[in-house]
Amino acid sequence: MDRFIPLSIPNFEGNEKKYVNDALDQGWVSTGGAYITKLEQELAKFLHTDNVAACQSGTSALHLSLVEAGVKPGDVVLVPPLTFIAAVNPVRYQFATPVFIDCDDSFCMDPQKLRSFCEQECVWDGTVLKHRERPVKAVVVVHVFGNMADMEAIMDLAERYHLKVIEDATEALGTKYTDGKLKGKYAGTIGHFGAFSFNGNKIITTGGGGAVTANDPAVVDHIRYLSTQAKNDPHYYIHDEIGYNYRMTNLQAALGVAQMEELPAFIRRKQENFERYQEAFAGFELAELMSFRDGTDSNKWFYSLRIDRRRISASMREIITALEKKGIQTRAIWGLINVQRPYENEETYQLEKAPYYAERILNIPCSTQITEEEIRYVADEIKQLLEALANG
Amino acid sequence: MDRFIPLSIPNFEGNEKKYVNDALDQGWVSTGGAYITKLEQELAKFLHTDNVAACQSGTSALHLSLVEAGVKPGDVVLVPPLTFIAAVNPVRYQFATPVFIDCDDSFCMDPQKLRSFCEQECVWDGTVLKHRERPVKAVVVVHVFGNMADMEAIMDLAERYHLKVIEDATEALGTKYTDGKLKGKYAGTIGHFGAFSFNGNKIITTGGGGAVTANDPAVVDHIRYLSTQAKNDPHYYIHDEIGYNYRMTNLQAALGVAQMEELPAFIRRKQENFERYQEAFAGFELAELMSFRDGTDSNKWFYSLRIDRRRISASMREIITALEKKGIQTRAIWGLINVQRPYENEETYQLEKAPYYAERILNIPCSTQITEEEIRYVADEIKQLLEALANG
Repeated sequence: MDRFIPLSIPNFEGNEKKYVNDALDQGWVSTGGAYITKLEQELAKFLHTDNVAACQSGTSALHLSLVEAGVKPGDVVLVPPLTFIAAVNPVRYQFATPVFIDCDDSFCMDPQKLRSFCEQECVWDGTVLKHRERPVKAVVVVHVFGNMADMEAIMDLAERYHLKVIEDATEALGTKYTDGKLKGKYAGTIGHFGAFSFNGNKIITTGGGGAVTANDPAVVDHIRYLSTQAKNDPHYYIHDEIGYNYRMTNLQAALGVAQMEELPAFIRRKQENFERYQEAFAGFELAELMSFRDGTDSNKWFYSLRIDRRRISASMREIITALEKKGIQTRAIWGLINVQRPYENEETYQLEKAPYYAERILNIPCSTQITEEEIRYVADEIKQLLEALANG
Repeated sequence: MDRFIPLSIPNFEGNEKKYVNDALDQGWVSTGGAYITKLEQELAKFLHTDNVAACQSGTSALHLSLVEAGVKPGDVVLVPPLTFIAAVNPVRYQFATPVFIDCDDSFCMDPQKLRSFCEQECVWDGTVLKHRERPVKAVVVVHVFGNMADMEAIMDLAERYHLKVIEDATEALGTKYTDGKLKGKYAGTIGHFGAFSFNGNKIITTGGGGAVTANDPAVVDHIRYLSTQAKNDPHYYIHDEIGYNYRMTNLQAALGVAQMEELPAFIRRKQENFERYQEAFAGFELAELMSFRDGTDSNKWFYSLRIDRRRISASMREIITALEKKGIQTRAIWGLINVQRPYENEETYQLEKAPYYAERILNIPCSTQITEEEIRYVADEIKQLLEALANG
């Protein structure tokens, strides 16, 4: 079978080549150049926020946010168990300790469990929340697959306990509240920090790259300073702090500026394709297409099928391999981070939904280039396969 | 005056655009793709080494080397005071403690002082070298401006005290021994680890990027694994270690493959231009063009003039500003790292040459594109200026 429908690939139908070649012609390919500033401005405009710093990856955006939040060796950071491990590793770069809090049905952190962890497993001394004598400094909230975490509840709690909230809003670039107290606010602009990745499989890509924003524009300026080796003076090598080599390059940013021009169209296609999948899976009993949080307008970046485990006992690997043979690339949702070797001894809190979904979620092709015909093909093949695998 | 002669800019006279556009056409712009592997192979061939891992920056190459060397919070790492601060910051990323060891007249670490520090300031218990009760784990040796540190002496000492030697060989890409026990060995392939940066001002550039090699090819494989988020399985999210987002992108690597094709020609031009500067400054008494270590074939990447401070008291800033007005971009050698705020309380050891050179070295234009006429102009203007500034 020659057909191949990838899970999620970049779309370079716009000015990508034009801008990249322009950067090469100018000889500005490194961490200086007008495309970096332009990308920062376009992101800020799109997110309705004041200041964005472009950086080298989503991981570096999260790391700089943790540094800026004052997370130090021995501190506790509350993190999700069901996401890509890159969202948690920066906690370890600071030699801090993660505690894994369960997700809710949006795959994002459960605010009820977050609350009960703070209330029942910690001590609030009026200034600092402590867990087993260690200061709880921050919460990393990942907006999974285009969904929005319940930020209203999370921010209330953060305020009460002086926690810094770092949103990993990569997957929800463009997702916003349409209702409630946070109406109009975009994912990544609600917490103290918002981090984004523009890796190859993301809704927009700069090859490798990321960005960070914060509720205080001066904090973003400081993050930008840290990301460029903390140069107080561009020529005379004065450095008042420990800096990082975390700035985005102009070559990557050129790609990003072109991608930003297309982002609204990409989101529309994602939303339309989601509706097509919804129609295709409507009434299908062996798997349910998961929807997005009410009261938000989601970018619908990644599509998730929940496999009915009462009827289907085949492993994810079997399902994925069978679909591969049909030219359809799918993936399992991530493995739980708390069971990976570097985290297996860390504390978890009331994990129920995360392991439940880890066994059940299949992600299906969602590139913006996918055609209606391909969507029908994908849905038909998945339905046929699951029917063949079903018990009883 | 419209003329502008930059200090050091990239040279894209080869296949840079062709390969970058090819990567865009293929849609491989992120951390997977054939150009990354090709760049690794070309670097390994050029350096006569077995295995090279391409990564995101020289800083990340150094950081991964320290991680791999087992440097942990509280350990001691011996570092140079007179180099770019990025060579020392990764020690702090590991929450380890730097001790600054003086340089010799090559601007690289002085092996005699390194030895006397180990012998007189440390205790060797037969397994571990300890300084004030802390294990001394590693030495970061920077090959400054194309020079080679005295690696024979440094490696002897490292062997005696079980120290891991991390060469930052960025500035000496292509410099090799032509004499002695290490004859034929390239900078970066002598220590346990060799790190390279391909930042915009380096002899070859990938925009932002770097590479790391090691004397054990299996160690390079492990570094590559750490640099790609420590994925044991590309599809199923198994991670046995804390990983990093430190892999080079294919877009950057495309640039790098083209640059590697030109590297031998770049080095020849650097060497020829150095000779032209030598002729131009021959017999000039107010400043001396610094040469490179005997017994090596240097890439002669960066040219250093030692200002005669008995006759010239003008500050570096005054000299640089005056030359700027003539369209000539120059720079002072770095500020001493040990006097920067984040390091001002750290220990130093017998710093004499480093502060001496910090006050005296002016770096002058060295881009591969510089013409003979421009070299004469630069030399004439510098000579005129220094004569005008000279006392007595």
